[in-house]
Amino acid sequence: MQRQTDSYLVDLTFEDDALLVDAVLEDFLAGKQSCALTPQIPLFVEWLRDFLVGGKRLRPLLCWYGWRAGGAHGDPTTVARMAASLELFHAFALIQDDVMDRSATRRGGPAVHERIAARYAGHRTAERFGANTAILLGDLALGWSYDLVHLARLEHEQAAVVWSLLDDMRTETVSGQYLDLLAEGNPDTDLGTAFEICRYKTAKYTIERPLHLGAVLSGADDRLLSACTAYALPLGEAFQLRDDLLGLFGDPTVTGKSRLDDLRGGKHTVPMALALRRATAHQRNRLRALIGDPTVDDTRAEEIRDIVTSTGARAEVENMITDRREQALQALGQGVFPPSIATALRHFAETLTDRTA
Amino acid sequence: MQRQTDSYLVDLTFEDDALLVDAVLEDFLAGKQSCALTPQIPLFVEWLRDFLVGGKRLRPLLCWYGWRAGGAHGDPTTVARMAASLELFHAFALIQDDVMDRSATRRGGPAVHERIAARYAGHRTAERFGANTAILLGDLALGWSYDLVHLARLEHEQAAVVWSLLDDMRTETVSGQYLDLLAEGNPDTDLGTAFEICRYKTAKYTIERPLHLGAVLSGADDRLLSACTAYALPLGEAFQLRDDLLGLFGDPTVTGKSRLDDLRGGKHTVPMALALRRATAHQRNRLRALIGDPTVDDTRAEEIRDIVTSTGARAEVENMITDRREQALQALGQGVFPPSIATALRHFAETLTDRTA
Repeated sequence: MQRQTDSYLVDLTFEDDALLVDAVLEDFLAGKQSCALTPQIPLFVEWLRDFLVGGKRLRPLLCWYGWRAGGAHGDPTTVARMAASLELFHAFALIQDDVMDRSATRRGGPAVHERIAARYAGHRTAERFGANTAILLGDLALGWSYDLVHLARLEHEQAAVVWSLLDDMRTETVSGQYLDLLAEGNPDTDLGTAFEICRYKTAKYTIERPLHLGAVLSGADDRLLSACTAYALPLGEAFQLRDDLLGLFGDPTVTGKSRLDDLRGGKHTVPMALALRRATAHQRNRLRALIGDPTVDDTRAEEIRDIVTSTGARAEVENMITDRREQALQALGQGVFPPSIATALRHFAETLTDRTA
Repeated sequence: MQRQTDSYLVDLTFEDDALLVDAVLEDFLAGKQSCALTPQIPLFVEWLRDFLVGGKRLRPLLCWYGWRAGGAHGDPTTVARMAASLELFHAFALIQDDVMDRSATRRGGPAVHERIAARYAGHRTAERFGANTAILLGDLALGWSYDLVHLARLEHEQAAVVWSLLDDMRTETVSGQYLDLLAEGNPDTDLGTAFEICRYKTAKYTIERPLHLGAVLSGADDRLLSACTAYALPLGEAFQLRDDLLGLFGDPTVTGKSRLDDLRGGKHTVPMALALRRATAHQRNRLRALIGDPTVDDTRAEEIRDIVTSTGARAEVENMITDRREQALQALGQGVFPPSIATALRHFAETLTDRTA
């Protein structure tokens, strides 16, 4: 699996871990493809492989960190499978998320449902067929993420802990996505909901659970798991806040995502909640008129950006990111993490919150 | 869990098994609801519970048959969990299937996505929100079906066999659904594809795999598994053929499903493939014009039904059902199944293929 060069890994010492994860993914998918239980599976594998190439492997990386933080006990192959499983779970979440949001682009190219629709342009309902098939591909990715964990053949006690975490992670992710959809089209000043979406949709499944899953493979105790949470939740929020800002102000050629999608979809985000709080009556009316309008173009998007900036909401979000990053870094300074892992997690937090893509 | 009276079970001796499955499902869902890992979960549980009430529990029943066919070795609680897991998997498949097909009704009431849309009628995009949330509910049901199997805490060797079967079942179901979507709107005379859809979408996941999963919990050998397959695949095809006929000629007040959906969706089914083969040039033109037309009403549906009947396609499908049921019954006469189970499976096959709902 030829992964894109990954800025999160360049300065880190765990490039071999990442290669091992890619090898596990490639072996797993090659096995599915060659076994071809049904004639349709090779095509599904092809779509999934194409999608996985573009991933940043953040969750696998955190799984390795968690494992090393716990003392790196046990077989690294097991960790690689768990890490690869997380990447498949992430594929499930993104592929279906893009269908639900009707996002046209992902990772700098067409979203999966768009790729499939384009391939079946002659189909009577190509667009709907693409969306439905992408949902099915997501289902497969979810199921396969669990198959990879089964292949690790964990001991009973460890398996019970791991599956309980995976169960929680799935429930949290689904809840976050549901909240996101529920709030869509109705952005308001409610910061609580905006942060609840952050927590479930990002902080838990992107940062906390991958760390936990790695840590329990090393037999980590509750003290380490709590420290992982203390690091993960504020960092996850900071990560999502950065994502929200990039979704609004980022360079699409760098992020690989449109910066109109969130606006057209009327996403309820922290920056928007803050802007609505700080806006003048006139600005608030403009925001309410424009956010969620599916015809919003670059000119009107620029008007929204101007309001988010001029109200000070943008700067406040930057402060929130800084505060949360500091909170995360403090959790590293309590002596629970081995120094080398604390350093790596510090670097990770800084890179993640300063990113432009 | 108050299940509907179930004609498949009335004459059988395994009503206690069914009650045990319902109790497992109810315990499991009550646990999810009371734990409320996220504030959103109780609502998801409520939707899922409402949906599960209407199910016929065919797959759980077959799981019990498979287990008893293998000698009923091991803990019945494990079988009940596996059987309940199959009902959750079925919920996943149906809930997402109805979204993909845009079916408005299921089990005599609104489909899940319609129920959710109705509950959020004030949401900006209630219809899309209902569909997206139903996809999420399906994802949860899929994941929870696996959680139930984990709760059974199978031994390593048995777990490997069970998870391999569950993996295959998921892949087959996804493949069948994909083929169904691919052929939609373009019905033709290709019987091979129509039967391939039957096999993956119905025969394997409805009959064969539930029998296998029960059988392996008893430590069944390959001879029994092969006999299950020999019974299941023709019966599964017969079941789907009956379903196709009911989808066209059945009484919606009895089936609980619209009999316009398959026509409007342009489903590629065996009855339609046969009708197109046997039709006069004029009839074929009419069929091609009407099948897949989303505006087809009762009058035009009646025209299609007349063609399917007058060409002899309907009678031929009835013959196919009879032939396949006979094949299935022959598999019971080879001395592999214990007599009491052979009798139960014979009754099951007859009820399933003669049904009106």
